[in-house]
Amino acid sequence: MRPSERKPDELRTVRLTRGFTCHAEGSVLVEFGATRVLCTASVEESVPPFLRGKGQGWLTAEYGMLPRATHTRGVREAAKGKQSGRTQEIQRLIGRSLRAVVDLEALGERQIIIDCDVLQADGGTRTASITGACVAVHDALMGLVTSGKLPRNPMREFVAAVSVGIHKGAPVLDLDYAEDSDCDTDMNVVMTEGGGLIEVQGTAEGAAFSRAELNALLDLADSGIRRLFELQRAAVHGG
Amino acid sequence: MRPSERKPDELRTVRLTRGFTCHAEGSVLVEFGATRVLCTASVEESVPPFLRGKGQGWLTAEYGMLPRATHTRGVREAAKGKQSGRTQEIQRLIGRSLRAVVDLEALGERQIIIDCDVLQADGGTRTASITGACVAVHDALMGLVTSGKLPRNPMREFVAAVSVGIHKGAPVLDLDYAEDSDCDTDMNVVMTEGGGLIEVQGTAEGAAFSRAELNALLDLADSGIRRLFELQRAAVHGG
Amino acid sequence: MRPSERKPDELRTVRLTRGFTCHAEGSVLVEFGATRVLCTASVEESVPPFLRGKGQGWLTAEYGMLPRATHTRGVREAAKGKQSGRTQEIQRLIGRSLRAVVDLEALGERQIIIDCDVLQADGGTRTASITGACVAVHDALMGLVTSGKLPRNPMREFVAAVSVGIHKGAPVLDLDYAEDSDCDTDMNVVMTEGGGLIEVQGTAEGAAFSRAELNALLDLADSGIRRLFELQRAAVHGG
Amino acid sequence: MRPSERKPDELRTVRLTRGFTCHAEGSVLVEFGATRVLCTASVEESVPPFLRGKGQGWLTAEYGMLPRATHTRGVREAAKGKQSGRTQEIQRLIGRSLRAVVDLEALGERQIIIDCDVLQADGGTRTASITGACVAVHDALMGLVTSGKLPRNPMREFVAAVSVGIHKGAPVLDLDYAEDSDCDTDMNVVMTEGGGLIEVQGTAEGAAFSRAELNALLDLADSGIRRLFELQRAAVHGG
Amino acid sequence: MRPSERKPDELRTVRLTRGFTCHAEGSVLVEFGATRVLCTASVEESVPPFLRGKGQGWLTAEYGMLPRATHTRGVREAAKGKQSGRTQEIQRLIGRSLRAVVDLEALGERQIIIDCDVLQADGGTRTASITGACVAVHDALMGLVTSGKLPRNPMREFVAAVSVGIHKGAPVLDLDYAEDSDCDTDMNVVMTEGGGLIEVQGTAEGAAFSRAELNALLDLADSGIRRLFELQRAAVHGG
Amino acid sequence: MRPSERKPDELRTVRLTRGFTCHAEGSVLVEFGATRVLCTASVEESVPPFLRGKGQGWLTAEYGMLPRATHTRGVREAAKGKQSGRTQEIQRLIGRSLRAVVDLEALGERQIIIDCDVLQADGGTRTASITGACVAVHDALMGLVTSGKLPRNPMREFVAAVSVGIHKGAPVLDLDYAEDSDCDTDMNVVMTEGGGLIEVQGTAEGAAFSRAELNALLDLADSGIRRLFELQRAAVHGG
Repeated sequence: MRPSERKPDELRTVRLTRGFTCHAEGSVLVEFGATRVLCTASVEESVPPFLRGKGQGWLTAEYGMLPRATHTRGVREAAKGKQSGRTQEIQRLIGRSLRAVVDLEALGERQIIIDCDVLQADGGTRTASITGACVAVHDALMGLVTSGKLPRNPMREFVAAVSVGIHKGAPVLDLDYAEDSDCDTDMNVVMTEGGGLIEVQGTAEGAAFSRAELNALLDLADSGIRRLFELQRAAVHGG
Repeated sequence: MRPSERKPDELRTVRLTRGFTCHAEGSVLVEFGATRVLCTASVEESVPPFLRGKGQGWLTAEYGMLPRATHTRGVREAAKGKQSGRTQEIQRLIGRSLRAVVDLEALGERQIIIDCDVLQADGGTRTASITGACVAVHDALMGLVTSGKLPRNPMREFVAAVSVGIHKGAPVLDLDYAEDSDCDTDMNVVMTEGGGLIEVQGTAEGAAFSRAELNALLDLADSGIRRLFELQRAAVHGG
Repeated sequence: MRPSERKPDELRTVRLTRGFTCHAEGSVLVEFGATRVLCTASVEESVPPFLRGKGQGWLTAEYGMLPRATHTRGVREAAKGKQSGRTQEIQRLIGRSLRAVVDLEALGERQIIIDCDVLQADGGTRTASITGACVAVHDALMGLVTSGKLPRNPMREFVAAVSVGIHKGAPVLDLDYAEDSDCDTDMNVVMTEGGGLIEVQGTAEGAAFSRAELNALLDLADSGIRRLFELQRAAVHGG
Repeated sequence: MRPSERKPDELRTVRLTRGFTCHAEGSVLVEFGATRVLCTASVEESVPPFLRGKGQGWLTAEYGMLPRATHTRGVREAAKGKQSGRTQEIQRLIGRSLRAVVDLEALGERQIIIDCDVLQADGGTRTASITGACVAVHDALMGLVTSGKLPRNPMREFVAAVSVGIHKGAPVLDLDYAEDSDCDTDMNVVMTEGGGLIEVQGTAEGAAFSRAELNALLDLADSGIRRLFELQRAAVHGG
Repeated sequence: MRPSERKPDELRTVRLTRGFTCHAEGSVLVEFGATRVLCTASVEESVPPFLRGKGQGWLTAEYGMLPRATHTRGVREAAKGKQSGRTQEIQRLIGRSLRAVVDLEALGERQIIIDCDVLQADGGTRTASITGACVAVHDALMGLVTSGKLPRNPMREFVAAVSVGIHKGAPVLDLDYAEDSDCDTDMNVVMTEGGGLIEVQGTAEGAAFSRAELNALLDLADSGIRRLFELQRAAVHGG
Repeated sequence: MRPSERKPDELRTVRLTRGFTCHAEGSVLVEFGATRVLCTASVEESVPPFLRGKGQGWLTAEYGMLPRATHTRGVREAAKGKQSGRTQEIQRLIGRSLRAVVDLEALGERQIIIDCDVLQADGGTRTASITGACVAVHDALMGLVTSGKLPRNPMREFVAAVSVGIHKGAPVLDLDYAEDSDCDTDMNVVMTEGGGLIEVQGTAEGAAFSRAELNALLDLADSGIRRLFELQRAAVHGG
């Protein structure tokens, strides 16, 4: 039995609230159960130096966690003066995942900066961030279409992500903190609407995992992410 | 006329939402109009090195602003590797203001750490932070009473703060961003329920200000802060 | 009785020594009793990036304290790799105070950088810094007039500052270290020759302060700063 | 055809030179073709603070690249004052991979620190690092056995890693720089001698990848890593 | 002819003012012509961790230059967040020079921290610092004798330093800035009263130098430093 | 007797291996006995900002030590976030030494960056670095001649360096770690092929040294460096 009494292939309640803050071009509060992440997408009319004059845009991401988003208070990275390796790993992952579904040439010489800030953490903050950021970026890009700066939205398809893992011997979908801190294998999967894999990151926390387990986890992730695409579409299209 | 069409002595709509996040011992979302700050109070059962063995507690504060809390995206301080002078000024002010109303000896050898993180900014984030943090600290301290760790709440009285300023020649209460960026004098006032002043910080942004103007501003602040105490009491006591 | 046996409204002996060092365009050693601060004003023929091409100048300030300016040795900020919040607060205050009396458009596209370095500390270093920096900036600007780069001195009037506080229940002027570390309320006041207030920063270190006390302190500050203007004028005009 | 004219399932020439430097308890130069990494394992008779008194050991890793290990010179991280996100990601991966095969309780309260420094880079530095570090750690642990500090070697089995990818549509083993910078999908696989997976990190650099492609890559990796175990055993046992 | 019209073996006017500031246990303003350095020696009743419990003391030095000590303003190292290589080189040299003449075992488990801060620079700041710091350390150690903490002064002999160089083909003593920035070879020599050499640091700025030139420079330095010992003794003993 | 049983004027076995790595324009592994330093010279077709448009080139150096190059593991400077004073001292020395023999005007507006990374340390790493870097820079410059970018090699003559010291009362050449950590005086000497001195840095580690001892050390260094020039020429010209 899972600590949350969910079925092995059951997602937590997922909510996507658009327009959560008012200044950003895209602003989404994403909730996976008690995990809550504020994802904003900001449009800047310039690109980083390495891309100037190359006729294409860029998209990058930053990630942070409020000090008391967690059970015990963590050190504020701004006060410490550096971002942890974990933070950097996550923000690089978010950036890569979103760049995979945006046509950077169609974007033109402008930059989208995603900020994912965890207000409350209960496991799965990086996959929630990708899922929420996708909607925030979609909204920011739609704004460029609406204002006539772009003829059409350069996002080719949606992208979403979920964590899966082997908990007490059983493959389960969408780990919460209780499961995450007590599982043998933890895997994050990022997929596009078309079913293509963008990232697969599986880590043995305790015992190594087999090819059969890997396959079971990928099947679970596939089913979960398909459900997330429905929620993204409902959020955006009122579906 | 004020940009917001408020009367000179009119506060914005102020809301204090307790229990906004689940892990912190005290967690309050404070809103002054469109300004929204998440204030958490964390209890740690130890004190900083300079106070060890002295039989008293400590209270300190940290402040941050999400990169896209503002009209244009600001640099993430964690990415930059240092906190700005403005950030440090504000967090020192919040800490001093709250220490003024908590009996640190009665607190015992433990520490309260306040985190004020601005989710959305529209002027007055530091005074909103103090006002919200007061309730968060109150709640964290009540938790220590409820769990039997303290015989009574060591917060002696509430503390609240508001900004006032001279906008287009007229003294006005509770500046929003539109007023703040276009005013001659800007003042932050921190008061206790008993009417004592904790901090008065007045700055001429353009023309210098006179003693008469200073007095008019203090009168406005006094009336505004009294209203804030009512809201704090209502939030805490169900009033 | 004050520890120094001064009367409540008595300044310490204040000295302003111009030309204390030879390279800076303005260089003043300011002494308030045992507090000694070297204030230099440097002229640079360019402005920071955010002002380029806007046809106006800029003035900024930096503050430091020699490690053994104090009773016990403090950490050297350069060795530690960062400036404290206190340092940043003070240098921002000095910069704002001087900008309030200099016509930045008349200055043209050049920058004045003030450095206030405390050689010996005995309380009131920030107010001494402002008072001394005013003369150093005056001298640097006069140099621009003398060399024909400016038609007239863009400093509109002098600015000076003093600390006041409530010590053992009594309002007193110009706190030295012994008083500063044992007072209930500490206030720094910055004024222009015309009597306008530039900054009022009052802080309750212990008990809160009342409006009546605030007024008494402002009266004391007003009388002290008027005396400082006489000393500045005497230093500059040989008065 | 691969740029190097290798067959799809052909490793580059791999060499493991033990005792490459003289001070470290384990020191291995690992070469995968032109990629050369110096891996040292240092034994320290203490553990990090978070493990003190818990009766177990620890193993951690650091990674670096000499500035001119690459085609164009990179910035020296020590001069820049911070390690890149890529560096942190890699050193975390190396540490996790080796901890997976060492019995930390059997190690006792001591720490193994792995340093992987890239002398020359031609793709696959992180997987070469893991493969070489395994032998260096083995040697360092054998030293503890030889000196009587441990009754037996706490390394349970060997661990090795290889990169695989889809280059011009075809799955290939052990990417060199020419392939790595021109492939659609890049995957790093870490396995134990027993055939268990420790890490699977697949990333779509261009087009997304399918489950079928993922499986083909895992098959290739499996065959390559089995060959690496032979080379590790030959290096250690003279095989 | 030297720019200053001094003879080749002529020192600038050297002054040593003891008790220049009031808090430090030793405080000396040293002037070599227009070069002015404030040297303080602080006594701390503890030693750095690496010496704890070893029954000996320590002596270390820090060096800084006020931003406008020079012709054009330099960046404040505290603002930049790091000390330059030049600063570190100089403070290491000062520390080594003074440790050479103090009996660290006789000092007991305490530490002397020297701070040399350049108020005005005109060449030779590092040699002036050593010469002035020697007197400051002497005074701080005498204070320990006077207060009964030490039976006798652990400084075995004085140490002093001077720069020499080859300027327009001629060896000259005690370079000022004009000479220093236009000389072929620059050498700093540190000697003890007994005539022993502590440091010899010669650098060809332009053309290489010969053994004969090296010898001529060492002769000049020897004569200059002997004169500095007289001035140190006069300062200390009233001579 | 020396710990290594060498004669007082005997160098360790010195080897210079050109082309040690493949990407750098010049790449030399230099060995002085067990001391091994990888020296690379990189050519960049631009100069630092302070030299732009001045029609001359630049040459600079960086130095590092792998964490386990030494008997006990040192902290990785990249992880610590700053380079030690020792590192900065050494890299400044290497840069100055090489600039002394390269005609920077003949080099044109390009920069040579030297990286000296110590793979294994046994004393004398800075002098080995200079000796090896000379050959690496020579090779990089020859590459510019070969490719037609320069008409002739702007290196005027070779430069080499060696350490000497007084060990157990006797002057000895080319200190290894055992001698270096137990000697009274340590001197590094940098010379050009023409016999000119570039740097002489002598330091009394224990007792001060006399002029006679200084002369004996310089004689030893002279004989050793002449032997190093033969080895450099043999390496480059196949001699």
